Amino acid sequence: MNKTLILIQCKDEVGLVALISKVLADHKLNITAMREFVDEAVNHFFARIECSGSESEEGKLYNALNKGLPYGAEVIINPNPEKRIVVLVTKEYHCLADTLVRNSFNTLEAKVCCVAGNYEVLKPFTERFDIPFHYVSHENKSKHDFEKELLDIIATYKPDYIILSKFMRILSPEFVAQFPGKIINIHHSFLPAFIGASPYRQAFERGVKLIGATAHFVTSDLDDGPIIVQRIIPVNHTFGVSEMVKAGKEIEKAVLSRAMQLVFEDRVFITGNKTIIFE
Amino acid sequence: MNKTLILIQCKDEVGLVALISKVLADHKLNITAMREFVDEAVNHFFARIECSGSESEEGKLYNALNKGLPYGAEVIINPNPEKRIVVLVTKEYHCLADTLVRNSFNTLEAKVCCVAGNYEVLKPFTERFDIPFHYVSHENKSKHDFEKELLDIIATYKPDYIILSKFMRILSPEFVAQFPGKIINIHHSFLPAFIGASPYRQAFERGVKLIGATAHFVTSDLDDGPIIVQRIIPVNHTFGVSEMVKAGKEIEKAVLSRAMQLVFEDRVFITGNKTIIFE
Amino acid sequence: MNKTLILIQCKDEVGLVALISKVLADHKLNITAMREFVDEAVNHFFARIECSGSESEEGKLYNALNKGLPYGAEVIINPNPEKRIVVLVTKEYHCLADTLVRNSFNTLEAKVCCVAGNYEVLKPFTERFDIPFHYVSHENKSKHDFEKELLDIIATYKPDYIILSKFMRILSPEFVAQFPGKIINIHHSFLPAFIGASPYRQAFERGVKLIGATAHFVTSDLDDGPIIVQRIIPVNHTFGVSEMVKAGKEIEKAVLSRAMQLVFEDRVFITGNKTIIFE
Amino acid sequence: MNKTLILIQCKDEVGLVALISKVLADHKLNITAMREFVDEAVNHFFARIECSGSESEEGKLYNALNKGLPYGAEVIINPNPEKRIVVLVTKEYHCLADTLVRNSFNTLEAKVCCVAGNYEVLKPFTERFDIPFHYVSHENKSKHDFEKELLDIIATYKPDYIILSKFMRILSPEFVAQFPGKIINIHHSFLPAFIGASPYRQAFERGVKLIGATAHFVTSDLDDGPIIVQRIIPVNHTFGVSEMVKAGKEIEKAVLSRAMQLVFEDRVFITGNKTIIFE
Repeated sequence: MNKTLILIQCKDEVGLVALISKVLADHKLNITAMREFVDEAVNHFFARIECSGSESEEGKLYNALNKGLPYGAEVIINPNPEKRIVVLVTKEYHCLADTLVRNSFNTLEAKVCCVAGNYEVLKPFTERFDIPFHYVSHENKSKHDFEKELLDIIATYKPDYIILSKFMRILSPEFVAQFPGKIINIHHSFLPAFIGASPYRQAFERGVKLIGATAHFVTSDLDDGPIIVQRIIPVNHTFGVSEMVKAGKEIEKAVLSRAMQLVFEDRVFITGNKTIIFE
Repeated sequence: MNKTLILIQCKDEVGLVALISKVLADHKLNITAMREFVDEAVNHFFARIECSGSESEEGKLYNALNKGLPYGAEVIINPNPEKRIVVLVTKEYHCLADTLVRNSFNTLEAKVCCVAGNYEVLKPFTERFDIPFHYVSHENKSKHDFEKELLDIIATYKPDYIILSKFMRILSPEFVAQFPGKIINIHHSFLPAFIGASPYRQAFERGVKLIGATAHFVTSDLDDGPIIVQRIIPVNHTFGVSEMVKAGKEIEKAVLSRAMQLVFEDRVFITGNKTIIFE
Repeated sequence: MNKTLILIQCKDEVGLVALISKVLADHKLNITAMREFVDEAVNHFFARIECSGSESEEGKLYNALNKGLPYGAEVIINPNPEKRIVVLVTKEYHCLADTLVRNSFNTLEAKVCCVAGNYEVLKPFTERFDIPFHYVSHENKSKHDFEKELLDIIATYKPDYIILSKFMRILSPEFVAQFPGKIINIHHSFLPAFIGASPYRQAFERGVKLIGATAHFVTSDLDDGPIIVQRIIPVNHTFGVSEMVKAGKEIEKAVLSRAMQLVFEDRVFITGNKTIIFE
Repeated sequence: MNKTLILIQCKDEVGLVALISKVLADHKLNITAMREFVDEAVNHFFARIECSGSESEEGKLYNALNKGLPYGAEVIINPNPEKRIVVLVTKEYHCLADTLVRNSFNTLEAKVCCVAGNYEVLKPFTERFDIPFHYVSHENKSKHDFEKELLDIIATYKPDYIILSKFMRILSPEFVAQFPGKIINIHHSFLPAFIGASPYRQAFERGVKLIGATAHFVTSDLDDGPIIVQRIIPVNHTFGVSEMVKAGKEIEKAVLSRAMQLVFEDRVFITGNKTIIFE
């Protein structure tokens, strides 16, 4: 049976669920799963609705919803089910490999268009999967020039999302501003602990009993964007920095993978500096 | 502002959400949180709806919902927010203590009417909290007579739920049948592993690397009722049976406590031998 | 059979395990469990050894070990198995209740001497357990005078450890200096995230997907002492501050309880600003 | 600096640690990490000892240890640090891919000699990594003949371990008997729950709130060999069988990967039907 996925966000008002469900019923769509949330801090309504049945004319449904909903509502009907992504890397393979494997077996719910790296070490591995690898060194050039090269490559592929898969360069606010809510990073700590460089060394020095990883959207504030997924694993006094790094890789890839899945299934809304996730 | 809580279960049909939300809007109730689920195996619809605003005449709302919903629907409006419970115990204190402490500080979302035990060891502890303790020995009497005594005590208190808080007697199907979906047990394994007696000894013999606890509704099939909450903790080869028992107590009380909270907040529906939980 | 527990810390040298095990064998002690660790950053050796058999003359064993070990070694044979503790509280009951319940059933591996609070609200509850409660208000007096009153009470009981069981006053460096490595605090975040006041509010504002609790020894640097135990629980966008507080309480008490158990079983060594834990 | 790893198992006796540490000191080996355990049920002693310094003549050290230890002791000095493995698969890629990626980056602590499968679907993927793939169909032949073909291939590679990486054929006791303690399987449930076929369907039918995965050594009793690693993930009423399968894959690969790491680092001893793991 056909399915329709509808994403809505708008100013909150009394009766929105009744209004939306009436419009859907009028269009012969049966709600099979509906999740909604009001962010009371900003009085904003978010909903993700799965329906069985499909409207032959999506435009009519779109217009009916927009007509009823408060001014400024954003309605998306049947977003692209297979997102296009560009993956940026530096030297570490573990997150990239996980993504390429899933891509190769069509379980990523996205399509990897290319990989670009500021080092060349992951080129042979990437090419095993018949994915193009673009080497863009950051050396001997300004950040602006480095990013310009990256942007030119990215522009070629018109991706829906950019994945920073252990990409160890800080992107400029100008770069980030071109992809609002579209860049996902994996940070190797349970933010906001250990912001910045060498979080595992910081964790070791502090003597923590758990280390973590955080997948988040990138904003112009370093390590401060909306968090999508966080997980931790226990460590103890026998862990040196290198053991923490090694153990951390296992959750980094799991966390990034889960975050991508949630985003690519259109389960994640951004509200201010937070996420709403309809798992 | 007033709040209204509505629980609905009925045969599934197209348009139920639209129908329900229209009835609520007609009664000036604004949906603030709505969770619904269709158990497709039995084509049954379940919903838990929180509204702001309150219908002055609950009876009118009840009738309007029932009129619109499929034949046989069960609608509950504003269930009793403070459940009455009777706690059955044997000798172990850890789950009981957790319950009595919460009861004492009004964070149980229920009221402990009394504790009854087939041993007397927990009487002094219970009475520290000014809760009546009824000692009903199972010795030298038939199961029928033992249960009759318990039932007489329970009848006095008219509880909404009976909590088996490490109560180590198996209740007869006749007893259980009097409280369908109203008896909650804590079992000291991650069911269905280690059904029956001495699960920690079974776990030790098997050499498992994790042990668990399960809170479930009691049915006439031993350890086979609908599961509400399960959790585990890691163990290793240094754990003997007694270390497993000790470690297990920590999750037993957490699991039972969480299960009670979910049930007392009316977040749990039973469908066949499973639960639907709107957390 | 008799058991002997031996704790050793000293400068690391080649052959320490051989030396120690020879001394024990000479005294007819059989090692049943031995854990050792060298903190390479400071070249210091730590060991916890359980033996079967018992030396009739502990003094002889002590001397033999000290004679063989490097200068400055600290050797403890059969530390007091039931620590004496004083519990400081403010208004929250959950950690205190857990401690008092265990104390009441002799499963705390310590003895609660008294509870002292800067508010009186937990007095009736404490007294249910026949434990003395000392009310020491912090109002209208200097920190010095407040702490002087506390110190006088503490001095009466000669405790091995002081437990800050949601005690919401910051202790002065002078106070802390009197009990080095002897004060255990429960902090309601996964340190070092959210140091300072209102960590749950900070967590809410940041939009984290997990919240945590940390038990640590108290030093003169706020929230910066050696960490003993940390745990987290997942949260999501539906959690307001109060839901985080409520969920957090469940791990706070579990974390503090576990930390106390480890310390009271003499499994925890302090090295610099970290702990070594022989679980 | 050179390192020496020593594995010992023997009948337990008084003074073993003293004896062993004296022998090591005599050979100028300094113990940097030592873990030992006595399985009291069978009175057997197990130890894993890391030393700095290396004995030029391993044979002399071996003889000295054997001379001192009880009759029948098994001593292994510096086991092969890079195990050779053969991976058996059927159709599912997730565990295999994880293994091949690690192998490709030399972080497996083993070397994948070949992959053999009873279906051909994973051949192209395996060959991307330049690893030979042997297709051995089980169709239209007896189990004996099928296993004979596999055995011939395995014999070619002389592996230290055989990894059943979602290999969906039950091996005969005769096959298993040729590799005692050398076959590792990943089972898709938290054993002993849901032994046998379709554990996720069984889990779905039972309505559990957590699903798990178990890595274990294979014995002639189906799903009953010594458990190495177990982990679980939470599920809820919205999970159908296919969602459980999908979520389960994530822990299956993590569990198998962790089990392999522990075994390949020589941290796992087998005692009866259990494992001792010196993590």
